[in-house]
Amino acid sequence: MSSPKKVVLAYSGGLDTSIILKWLQTEYQCEVVTFTADLGQGEELEPARAKAEMMGAKSIYIEDVREEFVRDFVFPMFRANALYEGLYLLGTSIARPLISKRLVEIAAKEGADAIAHGATGKGNDQVRFELAAYALNPDIKVIAPWRDWDLTSRTKLLEFAEQHQIPVAKDKRGEAPFSVDANLLHTSSEGKVLENPADEAPEYVYQRTVAPEDAPNAPEMVEIGFEKGDAVSINGESMSPATILTKLNELGGKHGVGRLDLVENRFVGMKSRGIYETPGGTVLLEAHRGIEQITLDSGAGHLKDSIMPRYAELIYNGFWFSPEREMLQALIDKSQEHVTGTVRVKLYKGSATTVARWSDHSLYSEAHVTFEDDAGAYDQTDAKGFIQLNALRLKLLAARDRRLKG
Amino acid sequence: MSSPKKVVLAYSGGLDTSIILKWLQTEYQCEVVTFTADLGQGEELEPARAKAEMMGAKSIYIEDVREEFVRDFVFPMFRANALYEGLYLLGTSIARPLISKRLVEIAAKEGADAIAHGATGKGNDQVRFELAAYALNPDIKVIAPWRDWDLTSRTKLLEFAEQHQIPVAKDKRGEAPFSVDANLLHTSSEGKVLENPADEAPEYVYQRTVAPEDAPNAPEMVEIGFEKGDAVSINGESMSPATILTKLNELGGKHGVGRLDLVENRFVGMKSRGIYETPGGTVLLEAHRGIEQITLDSGAGHLKDSIMPRYAELIYNGFWFSPEREMLQALIDKSQEHVTGTVRVKLYKGSATTVARWSDHSLYSEAHVTFEDDAGAYDQTDAKGFIQLNALRLKLLAARDRRLKG
Amino acid sequence: MSSPKKVVLAYSGGLDTSIILKWLQTEYQCEVVTFTADLGQGEELEPARAKAEMMGAKSIYIEDVREEFVRDFVFPMFRANALYEGLYLLGTSIARPLISKRLVEIAAKEGADAIAHGATGKGNDQVRFELAAYALNPDIKVIAPWRDWDLTSRTKLLEFAEQHQIPVAKDKRGEAPFSVDANLLHTSSEGKVLENPADEAPEYVYQRTVAPEDAPNAPEMVEIGFEKGDAVSINGESMSPATILTKLNELGGKHGVGRLDLVENRFVGMKSRGIYETPGGTVLLEAHRGIEQITLDSGAGHLKDSIMPRYAELIYNGFWFSPEREMLQALIDKSQEHVTGTVRVKLYKGSATTVARWSDHSLYSEAHVTFEDDAGAYDQTDAKGFIQLNALRLKLLAARDRRLKG
Amino acid sequence: MSSPKKVVLAYSGGLDTSIILKWLQTEYQCEVVTFTADLGQGEELEPARAKAEMMGAKSIYIEDVREEFVRDFVFPMFRANALYEGLYLLGTSIARPLISKRLVEIAAKEGADAIAHGATGKGNDQVRFELAAYALNPDIKVIAPWRDWDLTSRTKLLEFAEQHQIPVAKDKRGEAPFSVDANLLHTSSEGKVLENPADEAPEYVYQRTVAPEDAPNAPEMVEIGFEKGDAVSINGESMSPATILTKLNELGGKHGVGRLDLVENRFVGMKSRGIYETPGGTVLLEAHRGIEQITLDSGAGHLKDSIMPRYAELIYNGFWFSPEREMLQALIDKSQEHVTGTVRVKLYKGSATTVARWSDHSLYSEAHVTFEDDAGAYDQTDAKGFIQLNALRLKLLAARDRRLKG
Repeated sequence: MSSPKKVVLAYSGGLDTSIILKWLQTEYQCEVVTFTADLGQGEELEPARAKAEMMGAKSIYIEDVREEFVRDFVFPMFRANALYEGLYLLGTSIARPLISKRLVEIAAKEGADAIAHGATGKGNDQVRFELAAYALNPDIKVIAPWRDWDLTSRTKLLEFAEQHQIPVAKDKRGEAPFSVDANLLHTSSEGKVLENPADEAPEYVYQRTVAPEDAPNAPEMVEIGFEKGDAVSINGESMSPATILTKLNELGGKHGVGRLDLVENRFVGMKSRGIYETPGGTVLLEAHRGIEQITLDSGAGHLKDSIMPRYAELIYNGFWFSPEREMLQALIDKSQEHVTGTVRVKLYKGSATTVARWSDHSLYSEAHVTFEDDAGAYDQTDAKGFIQLNALRLKLLAARDRRLKG
Repeated sequence: MSSPKKVVLAYSGGLDTSIILKWLQTEYQCEVVTFTADLGQGEELEPARAKAEMMGAKSIYIEDVREEFVRDFVFPMFRANALYEGLYLLGTSIARPLISKRLVEIAAKEGADAIAHGATGKGNDQVRFELAAYALNPDIKVIAPWRDWDLTSRTKLLEFAEQHQIPVAKDKRGEAPFSVDANLLHTSSEGKVLENPADEAPEYVYQRTVAPEDAPNAPEMVEIGFEKGDAVSINGESMSPATILTKLNELGGKHGVGRLDLVENRFVGMKSRGIYETPGGTVLLEAHRGIEQITLDSGAGHLKDSIMPRYAELIYNGFWFSPEREMLQALIDKSQEHVTGTVRVKLYKGSATTVARWSDHSLYSEAHVTFEDDAGAYDQTDAKGFIQLNALRLKLLAARDRRLKG
Repeated sequence: MSSPKKVVLAYSGGLDTSIILKWLQTEYQCEVVTFTADLGQGEELEPARAKAEMMGAKSIYIEDVREEFVRDFVFPMFRANALYEGLYLLGTSIARPLISKRLVEIAAKEGADAIAHGATGKGNDQVRFELAAYALNPDIKVIAPWRDWDLTSRTKLLEFAEQHQIPVAKDKRGEAPFSVDANLLHTSSEGKVLENPADEAPEYVYQRTVAPEDAPNAPEMVEIGFEKGDAVSINGESMSPATILTKLNELGGKHGVGRLDLVENRFVGMKSRGIYETPGGTVLLEAHRGIEQITLDSGAGHLKDSIMPRYAELIYNGFWFSPEREMLQALIDKSQEHVTGTVRVKLYKGSATTVARWSDHSLYSEAHVTFEDDAGAYDQTDAKGFIQLNALRLKLLAARDRRLKG
Repeated sequence: MSSPKKVVLAYSGGLDTSIILKWLQTEYQCEVVTFTADLGQGEELEPARAKAEMMGAKSIYIEDVREEFVRDFVFPMFRANALYEGLYLLGTSIARPLISKRLVEIAAKEGADAIAHGATGKGNDQVRFELAAYALNPDIKVIAPWRDWDLTSRTKLLEFAEQHQIPVAKDKRGEAPFSVDANLLHTSSEGKVLENPADEAPEYVYQRTVAPEDAPNAPEMVEIGFEKGDAVSINGESMSPATILTKLNELGGKHGVGRLDLVENRFVGMKSRGIYETPGGTVLLEAHRGIEQITLDSGAGHLKDSIMPRYAELIYNGFWFSPEREMLQALIDKSQEHVTGTVRVKLYKGSATTVARWSDHSLYSEAHVTFEDDAGAYDQTDAKGFIQLNALRLKLLAARDRRLKG
């Protein structure tokens, strides 16, 4: 790879990406443009501007992308009830393609020939950043300093920072006891004190949810309205996508909902242990399933269920911008045309549970299912033929067994 | 269908199957053999013997099949993490094939040409009973009186009972406010007061779990040991399959774990709403996933996840005894050879959560995943090549788009 | 089912459906409207009009639906490379929903409350006709005389015909040695002389293709142009969908292409043996695969391949008008956006073989694949990292095995 | 990677692997053990011994592994009807794991710390060799000289050969017009004159099959006997696995059967064009499908079909020794218990076509399917109930549409 001339860096304003900013300038003698996104991670972004300016960033982009994030990434994913390895709501995975998309767009605008990110060579995020970038611009260069540089210890990093007058907050001098990623959908924590999956995660790891034990003693009900598979209102009040997720985060977090302690399989081949907090997403998934229960027919629902693991794996592995993810999305979106209605979810001490759901689009037919007289809606004698023909091949199999044993 | 000579009836001892017993005798002038199974439904079975004797049953079979039920049906199913429509643990579905198996075996022993069951023509159970029976004996006749007789109202049933001196308990004179099925794995309730899915289920419906609000205020930890995918011990004490499930039911029920309010799709084509209580099963599923997290590699795990919905659908639809269920079982069982180890699950106010897991068979490698120096276990520069080749087709796609857009 | 007042009958003009026409009139005292479609079966339709008039049909619909058939049913199906049970091109299955759609539409226009078809109670066609009809009009009645009447032998049928002055062609007095269905996509033959799958099908069964032994001794090349997955031209000449299929039928039939002798699994549970001739369709499938080879990326292609069997099964089983078929179609259609280009297929003595393909939309990169110097398009050292990370989990598995074996 | 001490080389005796042998010795000052396998590629192996001796190989292994190849690799794969991307019979892919297995076993026996192969950095074979090796020995080193050395042109290779007294056959001085791999299952050709997929492959590329135009003018019938999914006899004569495949190759090759011109997707991300000749395998696949048609029930068959693409992809990508391939194999093998019987296949001018099949294990029931009186085997009125209940959800969907549009 030839040396980059101008690099757009995914910049958080923190120590690590500040070191990267400087390292790019010194290593490649290149211009660096910074991009800092408000994905709902809950940090102020203006300090990042000041820091980037001070370090000589050529241009500085600071953007609130929360609505785009929820509308174009989180909600489409939730239409699928996506869970990676049965449990993980993909909070980190779904944010990476949006960041790459903006990096590539800014690179085009700024005439930059490269982008850079702060993900390490062991994790999934490098893959997600880079696959998305290459899918959007096949000629872009991607720089991943953590894979390339020789700043391979905390000591070396701090020396580099000192050498280049990069301010280091006092509490960053020591190493953090674990590593954190956050956005509007979740907070994930991993590494260090969490590395042994036989040890329970200490309570101080959790940042966005109260412990169920500390949650209110009374349950709280929340009614979520859906249109075509997406949440559109809470307790009857219409809200924008990001506002809905923010509100559900508050509600879920308050009731200790959405904690997950998981050992998962990374795309790069190793297992890792993560602590995830996805309060609003957990409520949203429960509610979405609740509304699908009455508005989706079994053919559609079972097909969705059968492709979901593959869809979730694609997102986890970084293939958001791929033909197959888009094909699966077309299938999923097609199924959501009537996923419209309202679900009541009970929040209590760590649980979010659907307790009621109703919809003008409901396929539930009390007339058919009733234990009472159904006025001819359903003819029970049909069941005989249904069973006989479903059984026919099984009978032929049993007859063969008998014949051969005979 | 020619008239049956001798019928083996799945007999609970309750009013409905007693009426069936008598109806078979009068309708077909045939002998009736009764089979009553202890599946862990929590009722005494000896009264069924007295009643069957009194009503002239030709032979009476009363059997404790709890160990067979858990060992040969429940545990194999849990190896798959089977959930129907994302949520339902299949408690009723998995018991039906065992009952049919015994009915067919007893019919062979007794020289009976037919079996009979008390399931209605609207539900899934008729399908499950009959598909299993036909798969085991292609020539057996199956009688489903609810589909055939003219006792189509509560009044007519009671008249028939009176006319034939069938004792009717006082509390059975009125109609139950909902219908119940129970076995060692779960209790399900449906119908009547539960028929409107927009109405919350009343608390009195729940029979096997306390309300989370009434559960103990302190969490309880339970450690479940696994060998080759099956639970073998609780808190270090080895137990038989049925004993383990019984114990987990106690623990889960006490903490309000395993309630589910679901609108599901019946195989016969309609939606129905059920309230399920699966306390032990819910804990078991959580723990099984926990042990798989460290002992199953991603290739195996993702393949299992991808076929699970189909496997669950087969069980729900009544195809336990089918080649495709057995093929999937072979695949699943193959994956469980190293699913051995221990999981600690926290029970609290309705939730069961894995908090720790360990195993001699673990694939988790702290050496690889560590944020610390990994002593060369993992070469981060490998990630570059991994990403480049995963990206290659995406780059070719992007290059095409660019080319066509000129 | 209450007695129908007015019935729209799928009417071929042949003896069987003529008897049905009369039987409906006499059985239900109802009006009968006939619908006769030109699906490319290669029979003149005007005689059907005269016959229907003579027998007192209330209204007579005769329509050329060939273009609609190929454009809206055959082509969408071929985008999926659909094969039932690995081999069958679904020629009969794909025609039934179109017929039902028109029957239901005509019923609405004519104020008819029922439709009727001439399929028997043993086959798949009854299912296909009826599922499609119910999916389009949930209240329509469907009459399937072959399941209902007592004309259960050839003799009784002929007696009924004679009794009602239905003309019987001399060659129809005896029973046909096998049964035939035909449309623009295929001819299928089954029954009677074909019933033993251990006996080779006699040559006289084949109607649309010459025997490969009788095909020309010189191969013939045909170039098929595609746009977005659909054939649009032959040998450079643009043609309408039905014209293309007609032309490919001529070419394929002349070269003995598209014969299939298959034992398949019917949806109703039994196996049956069919002889299928799909000359044009076989050429089209080969060519479509050929163009996909260079225009579809592997992620898209493998996803399509993985859902194809399910898609084909849905069509075979009669679920064309179902949410899950439409969802799969959305996925498939999404994949076809760049399936544009030209394929050369060689026809010779029963085979159709892709020998060349080219496209402006090609993803094939000679620059990457070349054995010659690739000028840096591909860095072979990337393969090392790619392999190492794909191997990582396999190494961890092997290390576990080693550890446990001590 | 530290320098290897002793390397086991997959050695063909040809120029390229001879250069590798010498290069390993000179580059690493290591001992080299050669392994030459008779996989049925049709070359004499003894010359390889002489050459290896002459070049100072430490030990020389020459083995006939044809029976193991067919019995343990080819036949298990054919049980699945495996086709990669719909068409490719995986002839190269399936041989690689066997070679790696022997390399690793010989390394263990010889105390070697590394193995080496002659595959390039652009292809799939490097992946297959290495994934298999790592799965069997996590600590083995794998050397792929083509990715590492600087002999990057034909000229440099020949110079190296000359410099090290490696004999170069005259016909190897120029470059081959295409590259070939062969074993008992197939011959593949690619590269150079084949690189443009718009150009027809020249006839001289084909090595194992006559052109269909040159095949006999009379068809030939062959009867293949199966037991539990594997071919065991030809025309009534029992034969070993490798003998059967050899015989089918003769028959198929003589009739021009098994040619394939394919553009496929390599695992490393690019498309490539290959010409494959798989005469015996093509006949075997056709016959295996033929016997499955009558001995496999639809539930088993459709499940097999649905997982086949994934199984084929795993083999293509090099994951033969992986948990997921073994799980799928368990599923497939389970299905084959009754796949026993005989198939007659017609070979003619490039086609292999099943024309008859019979078996004691047949599930085909003429009693059920017959157009004649079936003596009550099948009750046509069952079809009504079967259809009604399959239609129920479609009716509920249609009723909703009507209601919402109403």
